[in-house]
Amino acid sequence: MRTVRVSLGDRSYPILVGPGLLARLGPECARLGLGRRCAVITDSQVGPRFAKAALESLGAAGFDAVVITVPAGETSKALPVVGRCYDQLAAHRLERKSFIVALGGGVVGDLAGFVAATYLRGIPFIQVPTTLLAQVDSSVGGKVGVNLKAGKNLVGAFHQPRLVLCDLAAFGSLPEREFRAGLAEVIKYGIIHDPALFRRLERDLDRILAREESVLGAVVARCCAIKADVVGQDETESGVRTTLNFGHTIGHGLEAISAYGRYLHGEAISIGQVAAAHLSLRTGFSASDVARVRELFVRAGLPVTVRLTASQRIKLFAAMRLDKKVSDGAVRFVLAQRIGGVVWGQQVPDADVQGALDKVAE
Amino acid sequence: MRTVRVSLGDRSYPILVGPGLLARLGPECARLGLGRRCAVITDSQVGPRFAKAALESLGAAGFDAVVITVPAGETSKALPVVGRCYDQLAAHRLERKSFIVALGGGVVGDLAGFVAATYLRGIPFIQVPTTLLAQVDSSVGGKVGVNLKAGKNLVGAFHQPRLVLCDLAAFGSLPEREFRAGLAEVIKYGIIHDPALFRRLERDLDRILAREESVLGAVVARCCAIKADVVGQDETESGVRTTLNFGHTIGHGLEAISAYGRYLHGEAISIGQVAAAHLSLRTGFSASDVARVRELFVRAGLPVTVRLTASQRIKLFAAMRLDKKVSDGAVRFVLAQRIGGVVWGQQVPDADVQGALDKVAE
Repeated sequence: MRTVRVSLGDRSYPILVGPGLLARLGPECARLGLGRRCAVITDSQVGPRFAKAALESLGAAGFDAVVITVPAGETSKALPVVGRCYDQLAAHRLERKSFIVALGGGVVGDLAGFVAATYLRGIPFIQVPTTLLAQVDSSVGGKVGVNLKAGKNLVGAFHQPRLVLCDLAAFGSLPEREFRAGLAEVIKYGIIHDPALFRRLERDLDRILAREESVLGAVVARCCAIKADVVGQDETESGVRTTLNFGHTIGHGLEAISAYGRYLHGEAISIGQVAAAHLSLRTGFSASDVARVRELFVRAGLPVTVRLTASQRIKLFAAMRLDKKVSDGAVRFVLAQRIGGVVWGQQVPDADVQGALDKVAE
Repeated sequence: MRTVRVSLGDRSYPILVGPGLLARLGPECARLGLGRRCAVITDSQVGPRFAKAALESLGAAGFDAVVITVPAGETSKALPVVGRCYDQLAAHRLERKSFIVALGGGVVGDLAGFVAATYLRGIPFIQVPTTLLAQVDSSVGGKVGVNLKAGKNLVGAFHQPRLVLCDLAAFGSLPEREFRAGLAEVIKYGIIHDPALFRRLERDLDRILAREESVLGAVVARCCAIKADVVGQDETESGVRTTLNFGHTIGHGLEAISAYGRYLHGEAISIGQVAAAHLSLRTGFSASDVARVRELFVRAGLPVTVRLTASQRIKLFAAMRLDKKVSDGAVRFVLAQRIGGVVWGQQVPDADVQGALDKVAE
């Protein structure tokens, strides 16, 4: 088992990475001195696979746990679902010292984290991410929230978990499409921060796609360590944390205009990162860098092109302007200078964004 | 104009108290270095009276303000209304540096504050309380939130305003019932913290009910100073801040079982405080203290009795157990030792609570 620490003063917490960690959920929660009651929020895909083991581990450690199951998919990251979770927490008499366990992928983590951030003005929560994407990205760093019709993650809070348990055994049952979507965030860490990780991905991609536990454990822990480092420097995203949004401005826009249904998040930011790589020619990226980035996404089985009508392009620009990263009306991009190094807060003329979209057009 | 400062490190802010302050809204916001866009959230009663003046002051100071109007009344403190506010903020393209002005009573302040706490993971907001209750209580201290069917304020956040503007001229148009309801919180400050304030209220109540600006200015500023002091010591209500809940456990319960429609908050906590005064006989309160407390609420025209059926009593106990102040399943009360001094975290046998309810039964 590997341990990565997120250093945020009295809100610091560990990320545990290893196979079979779900069985340790109860004992690990017991070490945190939380209240006896808790709620496990999960979804209709993950619940049938893992909720029983979570409940057993919590029960054996003396916790009184209930399960709240939401429909699987991005459409559950919505206010009416938040409201139904609140009602169930109230029905089960959760108190201020009670806690929530988010058992599932990024959708469940973001939703359950937002519920935890706001129920009784905030109760503790534990992340048990079961997808690759959630383990390397969304479960770490305390960004929680839900979508509005107008845009992704427009509502939310910063609420750090007390513990993140990354059980590598969860990947065994992860559908191929979701696993590959998670690789989009893994590749991102290489582009923004770590050329050695990028080279390792180029070298070991086949072993990763075969889900070899030894390679995966090292890669997941490395991604978590990069994220923990960035979050420790800039919790509320006023500076370096924005680099984690590489490829996300266009990616979020694509998700918004397709009503969060067509693409998995990792697929949308795969296209977004390839477009951002093209845009990065203005900040020092070379044509061969763009080609390496594109090639790795292609080998990972991720989409790198999109078909957009003229009216969809207009909607995409409107959605990007609603993105949280907008400041003074201007969309700001994270752009790469080289593989392993990025700059943020870059204003880019609309015409250049259109040009990058042409490059990823089908 | 009086100024009271809330000291919370880099989240400190001033409370300004005086007549005609609404006209200073724009210039005061300009001093805070906020973004150009803002939304004034108000309700259907307050909006027609004050929104125009707020917009003019903001506009003259260079801000681009829009007005969002919600129905007047406690029923607007609900998730669907929060959702409609979010949608309007998105439609008006509010960004992270944009801000919200809460223009109205406690309902508007709590609702708008929660919207500000969670939109884009938190944007700045300004409190412009127009009722006595909001000026002396809910606008100060950063507790924001909405109700669930299961209980009052069960969803929320701690999100401090950047500024509180208490315009005493707003009382001119405040309905008599609402003004008197505000006195319930004013009297509370005397009971929990300040025997001199309590005596002043006994002496000057008629002048206060006549809304004499000189007396009111001093009383509002004194209440804000007490609240600022308590909040500065204990922002997140882990200790002394709970004393502000004197009378609120039973009061919130009464509001919950009447579906937040029958009583104004001040009316419910008037009954709650009289019941808490009876319970306080166990912590040192004398029968004459109880009589003084009851008498002052009666003179202020506030209800001190309630008619409850047996089944309503059962519901009231269930609602109290859902209160946020519950810990390890036990309801905790704030009880008075004398006028001007209280203790908190007091467990009280159900039979004694029933006894106190008998005392306030019609």
